[in-house]
Amino acid sequence: MSDELSVVGKRLPRWGASEKATGAARFLADIKLPGMLVGKILFSPHAHARILKIDTSKAEKLPGVEAVVTWQDVPKNLYNPNKLDLILVHPELEFKDMYVLSEKARFVGDRIAAVAAVDASVAQRALELIEVNYEALPAVFDPVEAMKPGAARIHDYAENNVSVRFGFPVAWGDVEKGFQEADVVVEETFRTAGNHICQMEPCTCIASFAADGRLTIWSPSQHPFLHRRKLAEIFGMPEGRIKWITPHVGGAFGKYGSLSLEPVCAALAKKAGRPVKLEFSREEDLFGTEPRQRYISSGKIGVKKDGSIIALQEKMIVDGGAYYTHNFSTTAVNMGGFTGLYRCPNVAAEATCVYSNVPPTGGVRGYGNHEGTCVLEQLVDAAARKIGMDPLEMRLKNAKKAGDPSSTGIPMETCTFEEMIKLGAEKIGWKEKRLRKKETGPKRYGIGMGIAMDVSGAQPFNIQHRNAFIKFNEDGSANLLVNAADLGQNIIGALMQIAAETLGLKYGDIHVVAGDTDSTLYDIGQHASGGTYQIGHAVINAAEEAKKDLFARAAGRLGVPADDLEVKAGRISAKSDPTKEVSVGEVVKEAMYNFKGEHLNISGKGSFSPTLNPPPFSVVFTEVEVDTETGEVKVLKILYLADPGKAINPATVEGQLEGAIAQSLGYVLSEDYAINKKTGVLESDNFNTYKLVSALDMPETEVILYEKPVPSGPFGAKGVAQGAMIAVTPSIANAIYDAVGVFITDMPATPEKILAALNRR
Amino acid sequence: MSDELSVVGKRLPRWGASEKATGAARFLADIKLPGMLVGKILFSPHAHARILKIDTSKAEKLPGVEAVVTWQDVPKNLYNPNKLDLILVHPELEFKDMYVLSEKARFVGDRIAAVAAVDASVAQRALELIEVNYEALPAVFDPVEAMKPGAARIHDYAENNVSVRFGFPVAWGDVEKGFQEADVVVEETFRTAGNHICQMEPCTCIASFAADGRLTIWSPSQHPFLHRRKLAEIFGMPEGRIKWITPHVGGAFGKYGSLSLEPVCAALAKKAGRPVKLEFSREEDLFGTEPRQRYISSGKIGVKKDGSIIALQEKMIVDGGAYYTHNFSTTAVNMGGFTGLYRCPNVAAEATCVYSNVPPTGGVRGYGNHEGTCVLEQLVDAAARKIGMDPLEMRLKNAKKAGDPSSTGIPMETCTFEEMIKLGAEKIGWKEKRLRKKETGPKRYGIGMGIAMDVSGAQPFNIQHRNAFIKFNEDGSANLLVNAADLGQNIIGALMQIAAETLGLKYGDIHVVAGDTDSTLYDIGQHASGGTYQIGHAVINAAEEAKKDLFARAAGRLGVPADDLEVKAGRISAKSDPTKEVSVGEVVKEAMYNFKGEHLNISGKGSFSPTLNPPPFSVVFTEVEVDTETGEVKVLKILYLADPGKAINPATVEGQLEGAIAQSLGYVLSEDYAINKKTGVLESDNFNTYKLVSALDMPETEVILYEKPVPSGPFGAKGVAQGAMIAVTPSIANAIYDAVGVFITDMPATPEKILAALNRR
Repeated sequence: MSDELSVVGKRLPRWGASEKATGAARFLADIKLPGMLVGKILFSPHAHARILKIDTSKAEKLPGVEAVVTWQDVPKNLYNPNKLDLILVHPELEFKDMYVLSEKARFVGDRIAAVAAVDASVAQRALELIEVNYEALPAVFDPVEAMKPGAARIHDYAENNVSVRFGFPVAWGDVEKGFQEADVVVEETFRTAGNHICQMEPCTCIASFAADGRLTIWSPSQHPFLHRRKLAEIFGMPEGRIKWITPHVGGAFGKYGSLSLEPVCAALAKKAGRPVKLEFSREEDLFGTEPRQRYISSGKIGVKKDGSIIALQEKMIVDGGAYYTHNFSTTAVNMGGFTGLYRCPNVAAEATCVYSNVPPTGGVRGYGNHEGTCVLEQLVDAAARKIGMDPLEMRLKNAKKAGDPSSTGIPMETCTFEEMIKLGAEKIGWKEKRLRKKETGPKRYGIGMGIAMDVSGAQPFNIQHRNAFIKFNEDGSANLLVNAADLGQNIIGALMQIAAETLGLKYGDIHVVAGDTDSTLYDIGQHASGGTYQIGHAVINAAEEAKKDLFARAAGRLGVPADDLEVKAGRISAKSDPTKEVSVGEVVKEAMYNFKGEHLNISGKGSFSPTLNPPPFSVVFTEVEVDTETGEVKVLKILYLADPGKAINPATVEGQLEGAIAQSLGYVLSEDYAINKKTGVLESDNFNTYKLVSALDMPETEVILYEKPVPSGPFGAKGVAQGAMIAVTPSIANAIYDAVGVFITDMPATPEKILAALNRR
Repeated sequence: MSDELSVVGKRLPRWGASEKATGAARFLADIKLPGMLVGKILFSPHAHARILKIDTSKAEKLPGVEAVVTWQDVPKNLYNPNKLDLILVHPELEFKDMYVLSEKARFVGDRIAAVAAVDASVAQRALELIEVNYEALPAVFDPVEAMKPGAARIHDYAENNVSVRFGFPVAWGDVEKGFQEADVVVEETFRTAGNHICQMEPCTCIASFAADGRLTIWSPSQHPFLHRRKLAEIFGMPEGRIKWITPHVGGAFGKYGSLSLEPVCAALAKKAGRPVKLEFSREEDLFGTEPRQRYISSGKIGVKKDGSIIALQEKMIVDGGAYYTHNFSTTAVNMGGFTGLYRCPNVAAEATCVYSNVPPTGGVRGYGNHEGTCVLEQLVDAAARKIGMDPLEMRLKNAKKAGDPSSTGIPMETCTFEEMIKLGAEKIGWKEKRLRKKETGPKRYGIGMGIAMDVSGAQPFNIQHRNAFIKFNEDGSANLLVNAADLGQNIIGALMQIAAETLGLKYGDIHVVAGDTDSTLYDIGQHASGGTYQIGHAVINAAEEAKKDLFARAAGRLGVPADDLEVKAGRISAKSDPTKEVSVGEVVKEAMYNFKGEHLNISGKGSFSPTLNPPPFSVVFTEVEVDTETGEVKVLKILYLADPGKAINPATVEGQLEGAIAQSLGYVLSEDYAINKKTGVLESDNFNTYKLVSALDMPETEVILYEKPVPSGPFGAKGVAQGAMIAVTPSIANAIYDAVGVFITDMPATPEKILAALNRR
């Protein structure tokens, strides 16, 4: 099939490229509505405090202030900002513990009140005029401390601050027996880092109630329909009375899987009777939106002398922060990644999710799988060292194969680990470089690797329902109506390519209507790399339905049976006699403007929900140089082999992988979401203290798309974006170990920590 | 059926009522795009002139000027702003004679050049800096003069300035023989008035090219899809690369059946590379957008002594102004109204359409039928007088009946003339009032009547293809996606009622997406009162398709066959056992969020194109008092009986009729579109000289909706709005004759003209 593709698989400009390049693209910051007010939030300065009294009277009297809201003004409906309860097979596993504004402060940055005023300075002054009497309470910033008897209780219902405790739902075998039978057991405890995604555009929202009471939200949600439903539940409104618009989004990476500013923005707009824009500063975004969960993860691996892994166990304490949010679901995914990557007969995992007085955590790229795999892949290296085996050989020995269940438990149609590991080893020169004599000077060379599998959606644990609609224009172009939020990942461009390929049109012939719940059909939204794989099929189904009409019409005109027709580059022709041909535009125009009344509006709708879940595979090799005098790590090269099934647009897939490399580098080496252990204040609250990786920090990178189309995928494609960090992070950690022989069990591996570890050793 | 209706037939708030009442509704004047420029047009000060040279260099150098365009900068594609060539069965009858900017001035106000600048004052100054060398040419302002040998030739191709000459396509019988057999023949020549509709919002347009070259137009078009296609042809662009947005519209009444500012606005935006808004002042709107055609109409009627009409003939000279526009089509419709209102065995009509150096004319409410019927209805009264018959009796004798062809030639399912004439006569006290002794003082009482039929679309002469799409939300509400431009006539509200009724929902449960060619399916647009009748069916078809899915789903849940189900007020129940019931929202939610993968996106699309064309009928009685000393006419009362089939929303139908009464009053009595006979300058160029009828001028009115549902209509409805002036105008004229015995053959019947006529008599 691949040979014949004319649009899919091509390196085409991403959707919105020209708009973004020229600055014409409108992000939330660019949107100004008539009469729009500026909203601001009053955050708790206390990590834990009872609110004795709030007096907003002075703020309300300030000229230019149009609304002040506290917890007393907002609906008394608890919610969980995570959308998953709506689509999870066991919705009871998501727990609601949050109000639009807090009745009690649970972290420094908890939302206490909000104002809407004519401009930012009036709004700021109004915040200062709100008088809050707090009774400071003892606070706890560490999950282990939080579980101890006598620790401050953060939520009334949660004894010992435990929000949920659970074992991995699909544990199998007998893990204790496995460890007994193992020749070597390695156990290590890691504290995974809770970094922040630092998307380019700080979190922003606009809310506006129309004269008839209908609410419009402009917000970069990854799940406009699900968040619409959540917001409706909070405000006791029917879902249909909310319109959710997703404009251009300056990065999401999982964070907009949660509701964020929408509820408070809507509460302000409702009270003010005018549109309100809430726009976080970088500081507010860092403490006020969800970072990654922190896991205290005790990983244990048992291997036989021949290298086969026979037991895997993970025990976690999860620091979810002040609210429940994604605690359960990321932790479950973490377990899936830890237990599901390799063939292993005995696995078990368990976790205790704990509240603490720090910012609540959420879904960030990799969504638990990143952290679980990171622990596992370091343990694999450690076990290989213990039995004197090349860790690459150990991976080859234990890697899963086609037909095996993936980490979701669904059998895999393909599996390219073996081929990619071998190809990568050859490309990077693994054997030679592993044997390479480590420098004796202060700078030590190391090489490491990591592998990962991720998902093409969250099935079978989540409901994955996708829809698309296609209508033809009389010029032969087609409009694709779909609610795929393009977060910068170019899902829309990919869907345009799929539509163009299926309809036999050119890429530029597809016009997209997206980002509006009113005019598009239901879609569960963007998460877990499910977009291309799932919506791609909905698009194909819609296109095929539209094409049926198109061919029926063309068949009559050309005097051939419809099944003898094909369409390419906008022209329909008979396979049996290519001289019989007509343009798509002519057929559509004739159908649209048919005097005989034999009109046809050539269009089609398509639905899809998946039964399979093909994982994308990653194999990453990293070379580093560690300075033993300064503790600095220099990443020399990263070789990334990825199997996306079929890359619909190789250029943007490569972009995804390169972005993930940068994010992993930051995660391993520099990004420190540092909370003061005594006050709970976020200390790394801007980019002077929170060190992101920039273009200048990037090593030499080589990305190889190892495309093995999956039968179930649209043109063979599966997911790729969400999981792209997962193998990179442990490959860097393993390279550092290879260089200097230290585990960094507590990322980021800053020079200070490396020096300290070297000294300990 | 009518008894059971719960939404259709109810007096509900019109669509957008709360937005409009609170001022939140955004009209074009309210829309501001980032970087938007102000456009202005340079109009010809000459009625007829050759352009020898245009020098724009000084204007271009003025700081703040971003674009200057003349005819040399715009595409060299002739066009006709009237959309009809795209949907007319004989498109060759519409003729293209206009460029975006003129290469020659043909009337005072012809568009010579345009500028786009940072603000209005810079744009104005730039216009003043454009140097145009005109060679003034002899001009002609009267169609009779224009046809004479030696008259200035306005278009090279048009000999004697005749644009088209044609006989009525469906003449029948032998009209000469008919007149010979008649006992009485009356012939009279009328000069019908070319008034201007004076919609509240002056003509405005915004054009903006995106970075990828896609064009968005914001414009109050009645035919967004057709005008998109026209604009595409002018600029040589594919249709799909234009997005046409119709915001709230401040009145249209037929005028936005023509392209107006869009081509020049797009030319400016293209050259400037920035969005441009063009906004006419009231003066510009009056001379720069299309008024009604002026007919010199010689009408002839032959009747037998018993009152039967046996011959009708109309010969017209049509003053279409400087361009072709709607000349042919309005004139053909005029003929249809004149020849088709009554049963008559012998009819003929012919017309010569002529260019002159006055503003080009276009489609205005009534669209020719108004003028043709106005002539006919005065002739009927005259003939009745000659044979000494009550004109009401003559109308009863000749009125058409169900089964007769309407003025479009299509057989009518119903005809309520007889019933409405009798009911109206009784209500107004016709017999007594006709016999009432005319006052002997200066104030004379008169009573007159008029009847009319109009259309529910332009079939069979035009292609009428309509589409709608409906999708359900999980709260049980539904979104209706449709490209019905709501021009203030509340077509959207009517379609919401139809959708709600069909779906078994409440009015407030229907949310509408309209006014955007990208997200809605093709629709021919709003003209000829076809909206409710035609789109109504498309909506019903879409709703029935969606309901099929809904019932199939509910049937499984309730354990009854789908055909046993009904839905009312949002609840689905079994007819056989009403205790088996479930809400629409529950069914939709279950289908949307179905864990088993048995998802269903409950939605439906519907198309419609009509084969019948049921005419709405009007019967109007008017009482006047004419002051023979001042010539002033005071309208005392108007009784309006209208048969809209079924009034979907009686309140807005009545509003349509009351608005038409005001417009007819202005047409007959005060609105004088006065062009200087020597210069071609429009003298009545604002509301101080162009006298509209205001609320204070309104007489006592009584509107009776005589509803006789047509079998082919959606819930029995047919058209009503466009034709609502038609019977009012002649009823006033006939009442004036009844009062003082003078024909006003040249409206408006100003006091001066009435005095002059009284003096002549």
